[in-house]
Amino acid sequence: MVSKNQSQYIRSLHQKKFRQQHSVFLVEGAKSVQEVLAAKWPVEMLVMTNDFYKENTSLVDNQRGLVEIVTPADLDRIGTLESNNAALAVVTMRPNRPFRAEPGELVLVLDDIRDPGNLGTIIRIADWYGVSKIICSETTAEVYNPKVISASKGSFTRTNWFYTDLDLFFDEIAQKAIVYGAFLNGENVHTINFKNEMIPTVSSYLVMGNEANGIGPNVEKFITQRLTIPRFGPAESLNVGIATAVILDNWRRVFSEELSVKN
Amino acid sequence: MVSKNQSQYIRSLHQKKFRQQHSVFLVEGAKSVQEVLAAKWPVEMLVMTNDFYKENTSLVDNQRGLVEIVTPADLDRIGTLESNNAALAVVTMRPNRPFRAEPGELVLVLDDIRDPGNLGTIIRIADWYGVSKIICSETTAEVYNPKVISASKGSFTRTNWFYTDLDLFFDEIAQKAIVYGAFLNGENVHTINFKNEMIPTVSSYLVMGNEANGIGPNVEKFITQRLTIPRFGPAESLNVGIATAVILDNWRRVFSEELSVKN
Repeated sequence: MVSKNQSQYIRSLHQKKFRQQHSVFLVEGAKSVQEVLAAKWPVEMLVMTNDFYKENTSLVDNQRGLVEIVTPADLDRIGTLESNNAALAVVTMRPNRPFRAEPGELVLVLDDIRDPGNLGTIIRIADWYGVSKIICSETTAEVYNPKVISASKGSFTRTNWFYTDLDLFFDEIAQKAIVYGAFLNGENVHTINFKNEMIPTVSSYLVMGNEANGIGPNVEKFITQRLTIPRFGPAESLNVGIATAVILDNWRRVFSEELSVKN
Repeated sequence: MVSKNQSQYIRSLHQKKFRQQHSVFLVEGAKSVQEVLAAKWPVEMLVMTNDFYKENTSLVDNQRGLVEIVTPADLDRIGTLESNNAALAVVTMRPNRPFRAEPGELVLVLDDIRDPGNLGTIIRIADWYGVSKIICSETTAEVYNPKVISASKGSFTRTNWFYTDLDLFFDEIAQKAIVYGAFLNGENVHTINFKNEMIPTVSSYLVMGNEANGIGPNVEKFITQRLTIPRFGPAESLNVGIATAVILDNWRRVFSEELSVKN
């Protein structure tokens, strides 16, 4: 059971202000809570139905002291999901770490991605394509927003993110980096030879821009290679999450081809 | 101004039952209403703010008799969007037409796509990649759902859809078609040579399956070529809209390559 105080505390965490004040955030739904437990993220409180507890005893058991058993209706009342018959966790935020890219690594950069659903989807896509670092402009949605966490389907546990002023960030690294950017008038991602563009000793950055306005002028000036997804029909644009997936898919394809030529 | 009766009528159209009863549906937001007007779809009522009217006079003017001018607060009250400061249209459904694929055409098939946001996104993606026909299982979300219309960003005006029993449908065409299906254990979409698979006189079908369960066994038995998007990181899956985009992007890439070899 959840006390009135606990319930008020959890509901306060729907808001960014209180998440920041307490340095915790909410993880909701069976799959996401399972991923948090499997990744051994520090958890402050675990609220779950008896069914979820029974099905996940081995995952939950060494956190038994933190568990409260509730009904699905209780979960709906304290959480942000329309319907949750499984679990909710109050999870400790990660400490900020300094960003450092490895030579040859591709890093994703988000310039003013406002929609939490898009940000969560992009984190999931990055995780599929083996991109583990994401740099976010300070105007990008907050990763700890429950909608981001939910859309990322657990991939937030395997992704590192860094919020920074992109102008300052690129100003510092500009001489030592390849910076790809998605535009409507760049080079075709089907035919660009990413491997000619990449230098093994230098890290690369792929910048994706705001849903309505694309990449802002402050960041655009650092782009060294403009990329475009070719269009075959009359639609005006693709959603930014879709565009991120298509570009990463083409990037990975080119490197797999090189790998199979070498073998 | 919108009368109490008009307002009740529009609000009833949030529900499928009343959309079907009246054979109309709602289109909301500046971009979508502009697309409906530009495509000259038959409209029953146009509710808009004075600002939207002034900015779109040429599009709206030959429908002037159908226009009601309201405040953004009125739009929020009668529509389904959280915030709409532009317009809402009550639009007539299209009559059902028989499905017919052209030789060499690729047709998208949706087996039990339940989420309206996913369906709308898939319609937008199909429109980007020049796929204009979508066959939906009877359990797939309703295209006229306001969330589908909204997520399609106007692409529903350029797409034809057909709801049918997929088992019966494929049973009829099975001997004369190539049927691709997205699975976790199929051929790599980066290396499959779609152009060897395609026969110019035969139409092809790409089947995308349910968000949780994939393609059902009744449809799976008709698949002639299993496809897989290669994975480079630990994420377990991609959203079905993302997967549709990545497969269509690879399919179009292979055909563009052939085109440029020929030229």
